[in-house]
Amino acid sequence: MNFSPQILQDRVNRLLDRMHSDAIDSFLVYDRANTLYFTGFPCTNSMAVLTRDHCVFLTDSRYLQKACQQIRHMEVRASPQALWKSVRQVVRELRIHRVGFEGGAVSYTLYRQLVKELGPRRLSEAGAHAAAVRMVKEPGEIAIIAANQRLNERIFRAALRDTAVGDSEASISRRIRNAMTDRGAEESFPSIIASGPNSSMPHAVPGPRRLRRGDFLLFDMGVRRNHYHSDMTRMAVAGRPTARHREIYRIVLEAQQRGLKKIRPGITGAEVDAVVRNHIMDHGYLDYFQHGTGHGVGLEIHEAPALNPASRDILAEGMVVTVEPGIYIPGFGGVRIEDLVVVTRRGCKNLTTASKSLRVVG
Amino acid sequence: MNFSPQILQDRVNRLLDRMHSDAIDSFLVYDRANTLYFTGFPCTNSMAVLTRDHCVFLTDSRYLQKACQQIRHMEVRASPQALWKSVRQVVRELRIHRVGFEGGAVSYTLYRQLVKELGPRRLSEAGAHAAAVRMVKEPGEIAIIAANQRLNERIFRAALRDTAVGDSEASISRRIRNAMTDRGAEESFPSIIASGPNSSMPHAVPGPRRLRRGDFLLFDMGVRRNHYHSDMTRMAVAGRPTARHREIYRIVLEAQQRGLKKIRPGITGAEVDAVVRNHIMDHGYLDYFQHGTGHGVGLEIHEAPALNPASRDILAEGMVVTVEPGIYIPGFGGVRIEDLVVVTRRGCKNLTTASKSLRVVG
Repeated sequence: MNFSPQILQDRVNRLLDRMHSDAIDSFLVYDRANTLYFTGFPCTNSMAVLTRDHCVFLTDSRYLQKACQQIRHMEVRASPQALWKSVRQVVRELRIHRVGFEGGAVSYTLYRQLVKELGPRRLSEAGAHAAAVRMVKEPGEIAIIAANQRLNERIFRAALRDTAVGDSEASISRRIRNAMTDRGAEESFPSIIASGPNSSMPHAVPGPRRLRRGDFLLFDMGVRRNHYHSDMTRMAVAGRPTARHREIYRIVLEAQQRGLKKIRPGITGAEVDAVVRNHIMDHGYLDYFQHGTGHGVGLEIHEAPALNPASRDILAEGMVVTVEPGIYIPGFGGVRIEDLVVVTRRGCKNLTTASKSLRVVG
Repeated sequence: MNFSPQILQDRVNRLLDRMHSDAIDSFLVYDRANTLYFTGFPCTNSMAVLTRDHCVFLTDSRYLQKACQQIRHMEVRASPQALWKSVRQVVRELRIHRVGFEGGAVSYTLYRQLVKELGPRRLSEAGAHAAAVRMVKEPGEIAIIAANQRLNERIFRAALRDTAVGDSEASISRRIRNAMTDRGAEESFPSIIASGPNSSMPHAVPGPRRLRRGDFLLFDMGVRRNHYHSDMTRMAVAGRPTARHREIYRIVLEAQQRGLKKIRPGITGAEVDAVVRNHIMDHGYLDYFQHGTGHGVGLEIHEAPALNPASRDILAEGMVVTVEPGIYIPGFGGVRIEDLVVVTRRGCKNLTTASKSLRVVG
């Protein structure tokens, strides 16, 4: 990840602009993904205090040298004491009135420590503002995610080629993981390789079960590289697909295509979900689709916006989301088809090129 | 993990006993490791409300069936709404006065939601009580950890046998990871395989660097199986060790042996750390040992008690801790030697049997 100081500072400015109307003149970055986003620097122990004129990055001595080299748009300081103690000094120096913080990442205990240092009135929960800034990806971020999805597809194709009846789910998932490691990447999440009845569990864990003729075989996998994730689900059948395989697959694919067509700036996550869900309902499978239609992907594998029945997130150009309906029939198997797309001016661009025909494994 | 309902209920009772004097008559379990400990059930979305007479486990529909089968000492309920909303009903039904909660695991946002439901006076931070109960392991827990350490050692020995000059750190760490996967285990943490100058960084990440003659080679690895961790560090030299290799290694080994001898019930973590640190200081290497001497190991790879200069944790029979001093010379290399031991009535029993002679890789 090599974003210019200008790009990183622009992110900070966008965040501070959003909070201006809440009379928050500063933001305390603690969450790991937000740290990467606003500083460009991966760190497991840091706090960054952002203001319009000056940003301070606090870390411990282990990270100091690297942080000084890599972070050009902030002042970097080593904190000999606990980081939250040093925040007080920074707040005083920069004459900060109000600090926004991430309520989902800051624990109760850390919050109490910050209150002790800063007083309760100086702190204001503002995590949603950072999430909103991160939702809209810059071209550089989209390029990384797109490259990761291409690698993901290459590894999927090779894994599919290497898979045969009799292979265990665990052995397939291991081949995938090793292929990612070989390319200097890692898994965005433990791959879900689920065969037969196991594919009816949306979050199945690959196990010793061996692929048999007549099984659905679900591949849900993602590559993480340069700190950004990717995500894709594809389906195969072992042996000749039956009419039932084909019917379920076709309905999910149609639902997915409707969802993809619906995506454009200005529409809500709930509206995209609705066209997908309605299609599945129209075919009588509504009870077999129990998760949301999609989610944002970026520095986290699940991030805003959400595409589900409750989502009021409004899509905008540059957002990167999955579209992944499914039908899961207990005891038989399940189908999910998932693409990763970027919202464009008038619709969306699919970052996923792998064929969506139902694959056959010999 | 298959602990009897009686053992699990005893854990709950020990926790409630501890909090009695604080007038806390209930504990809300949210932290993942605490959930495993008090319920025996692995779950990524649950809250458990513990009281002396009755415990309620709240989860969503995905986990309901399995939770009902596996949790015998609690009432299991599916929560159709957000879990924190259902807590209110449980608190009312059980006439709970005060709920202890985990301040390090509960986020600020979740805390506010709980306050909204329960009122602020009903909540009391009590995470340290749960940590204190978990510190002392039962025989069944020690048996799992000991078995994991034995597997860890077997995998280490095989990895050492397979390692030769020219191998990359990444390839060695991958062999180790795959060996663990093959045995139905996973890594307690990404193995630290660090060669030459890289071994001077206590938290090095295995990379493309290939092993050369004259290198120190550090293996820091652990097996996680049945939800419990293990941890061990061993050292090798590529080619013939020099006098410098031998000297540094000897000092670290002596320091470690002094630490192991010091361990017994009643002593503090700081006292164990002091004998180790003083030995390294006496040989002029104090500046090259910048981390603590050890930590507890259990459902988390790092848990209480701490063995470091600031630790007031008092050791007790049944605690499982690492003893892992090191000397790290920037640009040259580092040595760390780490055993995992259980505190016994009069001292400690080493769960690690792998030889601590300095190994040689051809």
